[in-house]
Amino acid sequence: MTYTYFDHNATTAVDDEVLDAMLPYFQKEFGNASSRHVRGIAARQAINRAREQVAEAVGVQPAQVVFTSGGSEANNLFMLGAAGYLKPSRVIVSSIEHPCVMKAAQELARNPDRKWDLRRIAVDALGRVEAADAERALNERTAGLVSVMLANNETGVIQDVAAVAEKARAAGAWVHTDAVQALGKIPVNFAALKVHAMTISGHKINGPKGAAALIMDKRLPLKPMIFGGGHENGLRSGTENVPAIVGFGVACALARKRITESASRLLAMRTQLEQGLREMGAVVFGLGAERLPNTCYFSLEGIEGDTLVVRMDKAGFAVASGAACSSVNPGRSHVLEAMGVDPLLTRCAVRVSLGNSNSPEQVDSFLQSLRSITDQLKQMSMAAI
Amino acid sequence: MTYTYFDHNATTAVDDEVLDAMLPYFQKEFGNASSRHVRGIAARQAINRAREQVAEAVGVQPAQVVFTSGGSEANNLFMLGAAGYLKPSRVIVSSIEHPCVMKAAQELARNPDRKWDLRRIAVDALGRVEAADAERALNERTAGLVSVMLANNETGVIQDVAAVAEKARAAGAWVHTDAVQALGKIPVNFAALKVHAMTISGHKINGPKGAAALIMDKRLPLKPMIFGGGHENGLRSGTENVPAIVGFGVACALARKRITESASRLLAMRTQLEQGLREMGAVVFGLGAERLPNTCYFSLEGIEGDTLVVRMDKAGFAVASGAACSSVNPGRSHVLEAMGVDPLLTRCAVRVSLGNSNSPEQVDSFLQSLRSITDQLKQMSMAAI
Repeated sequence: MTYTYFDHNATTAVDDEVLDAMLPYFQKEFGNASSRHVRGIAARQAINRAREQVAEAVGVQPAQVVFTSGGSEANNLFMLGAAGYLKPSRVIVSSIEHPCVMKAAQELARNPDRKWDLRRIAVDALGRVEAADAERALNERTAGLVSVMLANNETGVIQDVAAVAEKARAAGAWVHTDAVQALGKIPVNFAALKVHAMTISGHKINGPKGAAALIMDKRLPLKPMIFGGGHENGLRSGTENVPAIVGFGVACALARKRITESASRLLAMRTQLEQGLREMGAVVFGLGAERLPNTCYFSLEGIEGDTLVVRMDKAGFAVASGAACSSVNPGRSHVLEAMGVDPLLTRCAVRVSLGNSNSPEQVDSFLQSLRSITDQLKQMSMAAI
Repeated sequence: MTYTYFDHNATTAVDDEVLDAMLPYFQKEFGNASSRHVRGIAARQAINRAREQVAEAVGVQPAQVVFTSGGSEANNLFMLGAAGYLKPSRVIVSSIEHPCVMKAAQELARNPDRKWDLRRIAVDALGRVEAADAERALNERTAGLVSVMLANNETGVIQDVAAVAEKARAAGAWVHTDAVQALGKIPVNFAALKVHAMTISGHKINGPKGAAALIMDKRLPLKPMIFGGGHENGLRSGTENVPAIVGFGVACALARKRITESASRLLAMRTQLEQGLREMGAVVFGLGAERLPNTCYFSLEGIEGDTLVVRMDKAGFAVASGAACSSVNPGRSHVLEAMGVDPLLTRCAVRVSLGNSNSPEQVDSFLQSLRSITDQLKQMSMAAI
């Protein structure tokens, strides 16, 4: 049976070019980048090249790139790291942030010695951060830290980060965006977003797991989370994961090269998908808001998302009932909850996230399978009555 | 020119078997281990297998293995994580710990809100932790945390961790050992060491960079450093680096299988090396103490270590003048300083760390090159007079 992967917001396969670039660094050029012999120098040069590629992809200087082991670490590095050198004040996050931003913010609010005031910004029914609520949150009290994601992992809804960042800057706060889901799907430019820090990650853009970056304004005071040998300009100690960093660099370069073509292909497939879904009576979340071209988050009323994911999996399609990253803690989607979606509909939510390897034929097959499975499920529930 | 790698304490090349095991997880089975479809389930199963392999290598249950991105992170996770749930008291570390333990301990001592009292245990002239000083440190004041490495990265000297751990337990402290350099070179058994936590890492044992573990007594209360999706039983959030974890598992299994043969081969080569070095008048640090079979740390009086590393590199041999991990911050060896070595001799220190791919012929060639280079350097310094 062929198996079609429609869960690219969870993770992606490593691109051939990326893997080819990584392979030499496992065995031939396996050196520790801190060593001063030829093996070490080769590793250091490879990291330098990757740093340039990552920087170029988001329009910054290489020195603004801090490599981490993943997006969660980079998001935590901003939240906890920036808080580490500030007097506790207010930390503002959108109510639809990824758990690694939300829980880091909650951790700041829980610290008995250095207690931060946590304020969540509301989103509207389409999942867009309400600029007016962001402004209120900033005016109510001195704000130290703000984090608003660029694109939501579940709905794909794109936020007006620059607008929030301008207000946050005016209020004297340090502002960050989690751009992990946006990179490779829409153009991402650090300066245009007006933030002080931004997180991007390799494994969402056909790069490897194990490499991500916090892009930062060098004036941002940041306390490291991992202390040690002083790697990454003292901000992140630990032997660099050279192959993963090399792969991340190449993945960034490829994403940059392919973005225009890729975005239009993805959008065409999603349009095709959503037309079929609407014919089946599906509700598409965030419809009408600006969204990532690859993401479709929908509910078919009366059909549980979890059930559908399992049935579609058996039929040969990988989709998600929620963010994979929180699937270890299954439960309701905090994103749909923040959007005020009816809990009954929330339970039916399924996410399709398309990728570069997908084809219109796969979308057609998916719709066919979905129709037949929903018909079966409806008949079963009819029979049960 | 052939190039011989004698710097295995800095990092190692990934073993063929390890890379073969990793490769499927970059492209074919690239899933996010939190996804509930077949791609996710395959990734989760791969992590489970690796967790069993790692656990088996050090004699613990799989549930005691917390995967991290590297040894520095795992060491920090113990130091900062265990401190996170304790009332500040005394933190005791040996004076020869790796920077990622030492600086984490210093960080605890610097925290204005939760200030810990940092006490460094002395080592003797051979680089062995002084049990009497450990006992003094424990008796002077309530101790909360103790960390003593199992084998030093520079000298290779093996510490009597169990003796310190017994005293620390009796004093009610949580005790940890950094076993990163010991694993694969000597047998490492968690229970025998009597510690509550232990760090091991993949890239020192022919596994990949990007995967390591904190092995822990499940009663140890540990606050996470990275908050988010709740991976690793809530102790380390972030999408698992599946290929690296798979590789780490296989590397642990191989290390366990090969240890006896490997240790005797390494020891034979080191004996050969040290005989040649002694004939040249070298001082071998830690000679007489129990040492890792692969590590030889020596000085040839009057010949700077840094110079020798560069010259040997050009002659086709990778060696280190200090720990690679601190080569970004070059300076004197804090290990030799703690051992009371004359600063003039410290500046001449060079580390050879042998690995499984090395041969007695390579050791012979190394000694030949070393003789010829030291002769040249001596003549140059004579001519300069």
